[in-house]
Amino acid sequence: MTPRELWDRYCRHLCAVDALDFRLDISRVRFDDGFLESMEPRMQAALAEMEALEAGGLANPDEQRMVGHYWLRAPERAPSPELRRAIEGTLASIESFAGDIHAARIRPESRPRFTQSLVVGIGGSALGPQFVADALGGPADPMQTSFFDNTDPGGFDRVLARLGDRLAETLTVVISKSGGTKETRNGMLEAREAYRAKGLDFARHAAAVTGKESELDRLAHREGFLARFPMWDWVGGRTSETSAVGLLPAALSGFRIREILEGARAMYTATRERSTAKKPAALLALMWHRAGEGRGAKDMVVLPYCDRLLLFSRYLQQLVMESLGKEKDRAGRIVHQGLAVYGNKGSTDQHAYVQQLRDGIDNFFVTFIEVLGDRTAPSIEVEPDATSGDFLSGFLAGTRRALYEGGRDSITLTVPDPGPRTIGALIALFERAVGLYGSLVDVNAYHQPGVEAGKKAAEGILALQRRLLAEMRARKGDWRTAEEIASAIGQADEVESAFQVLAHLAASPGRGVVLQGKRSDPRSARFAIER
Amino acid sequence: MTPRELWDRYCRHLCAVDALDFRLDISRVRFDDGFLESMEPRMQAALAEMEALEAGGLANPDEQRMVGHYWLRAPERAPSPELRRAIEGTLASIESFAGDIHAARIRPESRPRFTQSLVVGIGGSALGPQFVADALGGPADPMQTSFFDNTDPGGFDRVLARLGDRLAETLTVVISKSGGTKETRNGMLEAREAYRAKGLDFARHAAAVTGKESELDRLAHREGFLARFPMWDWVGGRTSETSAVGLLPAALSGFRIREILEGARAMYTATRERSTAKKPAALLALMWHRAGEGRGAKDMVVLPYCDRLLLFSRYLQQLVMESLGKEKDRAGRIVHQGLAVYGNKGSTDQHAYVQQLRDGIDNFFVTFIEVLGDRTAPSIEVEPDATSGDFLSGFLAGTRRALYEGGRDSITLTVPDPGPRTIGALIALFERAVGLYGSLVDVNAYHQPGVEAGKKAAEGILALQRRLLAEMRARKGDWRTAEEIASAIGQADEVESAFQVLAHLAASPGRGVVLQGKRSDPRSARFAIER
Repeated sequence: MTPRELWDRYCRHLCAVDALDFRLDISRVRFDDGFLESMEPRMQAALAEMEALEAGGLANPDEQRMVGHYWLRAPERAPSPELRRAIEGTLASIESFAGDIHAARIRPESRPRFTQSLVVGIGGSALGPQFVADALGGPADPMQTSFFDNTDPGGFDRVLARLGDRLAETLTVVISKSGGTKETRNGMLEAREAYRAKGLDFARHAAAVTGKESELDRLAHREGFLARFPMWDWVGGRTSETSAVGLLPAALSGFRIREILEGARAMYTATRERSTAKKPAALLALMWHRAGEGRGAKDMVVLPYCDRLLLFSRYLQQLVMESLGKEKDRAGRIVHQGLAVYGNKGSTDQHAYVQQLRDGIDNFFVTFIEVLGDRTAPSIEVEPDATSGDFLSGFLAGTRRALYEGGRDSITLTVPDPGPRTIGALIALFERAVGLYGSLVDVNAYHQPGVEAGKKAAEGILALQRRLLAEMRARKGDWRTAEEIASAIGQADEVESAFQVLAHLAASPGRGVVLQGKRSDPRSARFAIER
Repeated sequence: MTPRELWDRYCRHLCAVDALDFRLDISRVRFDDGFLESMEPRMQAALAEMEALEAGGLANPDEQRMVGHYWLRAPERAPSPELRRAIEGTLASIESFAGDIHAARIRPESRPRFTQSLVVGIGGSALGPQFVADALGGPADPMQTSFFDNTDPGGFDRVLARLGDRLAETLTVVISKSGGTKETRNGMLEAREAYRAKGLDFARHAAAVTGKESELDRLAHREGFLARFPMWDWVGGRTSETSAVGLLPAALSGFRIREILEGARAMYTATRERSTAKKPAALLALMWHRAGEGRGAKDMVVLPYCDRLLLFSRYLQQLVMESLGKEKDRAGRIVHQGLAVYGNKGSTDQHAYVQQLRDGIDNFFVTFIEVLGDRTAPSIEVEPDATSGDFLSGFLAGTRRALYEGGRDSITLTVPDPGPRTIGALIALFERAVGLYGSLVDVNAYHQPGVEAGKKAAEGILALQRRLLAEMRARKGDWRTAEEIASAIGQADEVESAFQVLAHLAASPGRGVVLQGKRSDPRSARFAIER
């Protein structure tokens, strides 16, 4: 296309949400005029499904659950007054609790106020809070946030070392929808131990966000945590940023959570009420479908040209991949759907892998995020009539152009700033696009049956470990190979796992397991608990 | 395969480097017995090319350059005594400079010592230092490191806000091989301005790592920076972590840089001296070839089960994708090669997207990194006979098994800890694997011709911006559309870029450009510099 034709295409397809100063440009995805028309019946069906979902239908039939994250930012649309009151009441209680913490009406045992928060969570209970903390945080915030988002002892130790004596003024927020996630349970126990070691009472530094009557909820009640906030079964972990999961950590940091909700609401409104061509979420879903041929044939590379949006792609990895990466369609046919997401930020990533994007394998499409206002104060000129921000903007435009000329598709979102309204709007946009895309490709976007296999296998390995330890304790000082020990407990088939478990135990201090020989020789290395 | 057959396969193909307590497990990649044999001639050819490269051949013919990053950790193999002395001398000068900084023999203007370092660099001048700082850093280090790794004004402001008054005790290290990278130049100017605003002399807080006689080198000399360290044209940015680029920031942080080099050297030695089956880098390259059919058909998902290795995948994105993502093979044929890399860490990513990996689109293979020693002190038990680290280990093993059972390939690297030797070894392993894979698929792994297109396009846009500003200044108060202003400077074809430039200028404080109308209506929005 000539530059003039591209300009026409750009203007014709530009989709804006004026209330958010938001624009979506799909002109650099190579669809022809018939594409939107041909997809319209399927999109209308997807929108009808979305309407049923919003009205409280069991949109996640496998788990017999409603899907209600949209109500969080538009409580008046919740299907019952009880749900509406629950949403509004929780928001009020979050604001009230954060206010009490900031005003030191709720205080730690031995310090005048809480200055730190430690969020313990993983997956949907960490990715949103991490994204928002990084996007909106600054050194003047009333509390600084750290995260336990794994079950890595070295990771716990590092965070605790950074907190140091400030643990005494740290509020730990444990977030687990089910209340039974092992990584989070472990993180909580490690945090509790750290408080204990400093002579502090964990419960007086703890709050919980979890499902009613969950294991965590009962523990928090029993031990007298400072506060408990609800998670509902109609909010999925990966769409929980505008529930207490996201809003409590954000409120503690002093972020304007009402603006996050307003941004989400404005995007939600925009994406509900007009024709497909004016619905940004619908267009986004259609572009994903077009670029990846409706089967995830291309990876989605997310490049916000803004340091504060660095973690958006990590947030999207879960939202998109866990929602869309499914073995079966809704009729039970094997489809192996999905849509891989990666990316960090521009222009930084230009210096990492735009070489491949421009020249190499054509297995991706880019989603650029342009942030118009790059700074609140005036900038120095780094060259005549050019600021650092002009370069940032120029690199985005230049890369968008170079990719187009190289035959690579891209989408560009433009937002005014990386503030709370924008954050809310971006989250709402992608939540909605994922839901619509799920309908287009006919998968249940609201369950995650595939994560069980790994968990079950892990449980099996921990059970094996217990039996190996028991066997070695019963025969202390008896040096045996992994094969011999596994056979002794009737698990000869599990010799490989046994070897790996033993190698790990032998490398862990205080476990009593010793290795003779070399880990590099799994058949002859011998293990024992010494006498 | 039965569990017993898998155990046999595991033992048979296990490749260990005992000096590093390192293991590479390729048993969960589905290659058959004939594969290694059939690839052996090509691997031998690749190894022969590697030998020629190490002997100082012009392995990067496009740029007529030697490729010498292997000499950095084995200086005795450098092709001339001059190069050897340059490598050893630079290492000594890094240690001496860091020692002077730590002992406050070199001090800031107004504080007793430097406590912070601010690394200004992008791409190969940031990703390695960031990875290593995150992997090895802690609160007790003699200096804490921050980064300017982009040209985002908001990003600069955030880092500077976090440093606050400590800028007075901050050493800024500007890293640019060419000395002309715009993002880095901008970052340096923004840093200089921040020092100036606090009444501080930038040069007395600055060091440079750059090519001899580069623009930056001359500036550093002219302004009297505290120190200058060389970059050589035979070290590529993406393989520069064991040059001054990586070692200077690491030494300033107090990391044991000799151990990083020893780890790299030990891996280098292991990967040089024995048969293919005993060379981890060769096996890794072969597995990439196998999994992706020699054309990057599968993405490489990198999952270290260790918080400290979180940034390894970002480091690898550049090393792998910029090296292998090429339009042409070495004979000039169009091949569009590449190998996409993403991933963060386990088990965290299990809760983000293992759903897709396990059930969804089969467009990836996983590289697990197992870290045996999870903590230096004993752990609490989170369940009987189980620690947090046992869960971490169990989740890795469980996910590896679930993926295998689902027909997905994985590779597992096992390392003893995330210490400096391991870091050096991992870097050396992947550097070598990338070089060998480049030979296998016949691309020049050492140039990056595709990044120029985006830079040139960006320059064009900045030139357009200058002309637009000049035109609007000449007709202040004249409200015109982007189309009218672009036409007035004879750039009617550039109306889309003009609109985008004007929209950005109107959103930037202090530029004088004002917008009338809505950004969402690019044809009718009007812009002017007011009288």
